[in-house]
Amino acid sequence: MTLFHSWRSELDPERVMEVQVSHWQDKTATSREEHVTVEEPFEVRLGHQSLAVIMRTPGHDVELALGFLLSEGIIQGPQDVIDVKNEQDDDGLPLENVVNVTLRRTTFQKALQPQAPKFERHFAVSASCGLCGKNSIVDLMLSVPALEADAVRISAETCYGLATRLNAEQAVFRHTGGLHAAGLFTSQGELLALREDIGRHNAVDKLIGYGLENGIFPYNEHILMVSGRTSFEIIQKALLARIPCVAAISAPSSMAVELAEKGGITLIGFLRNQAMNVYAHPERIIH
Amino acid sequence: MTLFHSWRSELDPERVMEVQVSHWQDKTATSREEHVTVEEPFEVRLGHQSLAVIMRTPGHDVELALGFLLSEGIIQGPQDVIDVKNEQDDDGLPLENVVNVTLRRTTFQKALQPQAPKFERHFAVSASCGLCGKNSIVDLMLSVPALEADAVRISAETCYGLATRLNAEQAVFRHTGGLHAAGLFTSQGELLALREDIGRHNAVDKLIGYGLENGIFPYNEHILMVSGRTSFEIIQKALLARIPCVAAISAPSSMAVELAEKGGITLIGFLRNQAMNVYAHPERIIH
Repeated sequence: MTLFHSWRSELDPERVMEVQVSHWQDKTATSREEHVTVEEPFEVRLGHQSLAVIMRTPGHDVELALGFLLSEGIIQGPQDVIDVKNEQDDDGLPLENVVNVTLRRTTFQKALQPQAPKFERHFAVSASCGLCGKNSIVDLMLSVPALEADAVRISAETCYGLATRLNAEQAVFRHTGGLHAAGLFTSQGELLALREDIGRHNAVDKLIGYGLENGIFPYNEHILMVSGRTSFEIIQKALLARIPCVAAISAPSSMAVELAEKGGITLIGFLRNQAMNVYAHPERIIH
Repeated sequence: MTLFHSWRSELDPERVMEVQVSHWQDKTATSREEHVTVEEPFEVRLGHQSLAVIMRTPGHDVELALGFLLSEGIIQGPQDVIDVKNEQDDDGLPLENVVNVTLRRTTFQKALQPQAPKFERHFAVSASCGLCGKNSIVDLMLSVPALEADAVRISAETCYGLATRLNAEQAVFRHTGGLHAAGLFTSQGELLALREDIGRHNAVDKLIGYGLENGIFPYNEHILMVSGRTSFEIIQKALLARIPCVAAISAPSSMAVELAEKGGITLIGFLRNQAMNVYAHPERIIH
């Protein structure tokens, strides 16, 4: 048995780790070093009380905490947040994997209220958990108003450029093959922010937190581009952040298409090689 | 604006839906039909009380409910379950997306107990949520005993065959590009069961439920093969189901490697083209 050796990579020590592996090619095994994506638990606290543990790739943790709270319906915008920073240990040193959020009093009291008293069990949230806090099927279709028809128009050429740009910017993925990416673009195709995470929902939550932190929220005129597939929960996040267009390199699910249609969101899939499918609200895409 | 049209596909009406899309190629848009993977909410009830809502692809729902309960630590094995079946509506008709589980009295009482009384909020579980019920970082490393050294040995040739077999069996993926697959194999490479789902954790939970239903649990001599990446939570599920070997087509995360090493699990990644990396416990892989 080999011992487990690992060390932080010089490439990007927070997000890439090097490990020793047995590499097999046909019938021969050799020992060599490989890069893997760092995954670590991250705890979100409200008023120093634990709310959830999320498995995530370190980096942009404050954004993740804010985006998570918005996606969960706990906050509606930056006005609900008084302060957000890393929790401190008994010696006053910052705890790397714990962020404490101080909410406005009324928002905090609402968050403390029990929602469904049947079960007292707590479900923490994994790297890729997106749909949370709703405890029955009837609660699923959130009472979030649909986006209304707007003047946002995006040229097909701009769309084709999004995938190219996202790939070009993905730094960690090239070394580990283990990260999802999400990019926030203007409707002219300018990249505002790119976030990578082992959890695809985390990458989107980080982008939502980016806008909350930087005063560009809601995202009424922006495009969200994700490296993988689109599920119901990705569209739900876009709806909460008021993003009129979501594009993905891979396929959407049936519920993603349905929610995009009902929510007024333009949904693009299979965006690659100067081609794409528009699954909902194609009126925003122009020649 | 086009209206949303969809209909169940003749290919696999439960899991594939056809939708009308605008297909763009360069500067030209045409209307055509595309297949998407069905995603629907699924509710697990204990004693007719809602426990969690999971976004999943329909099919093998009883397996999913059982595997989910095991992964969450609510049940330890089939002995904890008295009955599991679709919930009925007021007219006695089965509710397609709701499964009710009747647990042994002591197991049910334990499930009802509050675990962390600070927040009364409930987090339902998304399509790909795997790590749930633990409300702080210190709880993450579950007190599950590691697998001990055993006599299971798997030839490199058997490993190379797993990926080929999984791909060959993946039915829905070819039509939609939207499904994760997980396969359960014997240590000689015989495929026992394959499950596909929009959530990669669901596919593994269904396989765990398969064993619970069919009296082949725990999986002491089996291989779990997944079509995507391996995260901490996938290895955690394998540990709970006592699976000695996990193989994946793509990369593992740092915590997957660490937990596999500590948990006594052989972890294979990048299994393709007669090559692979063994990230932990390579002693089970032989020439």
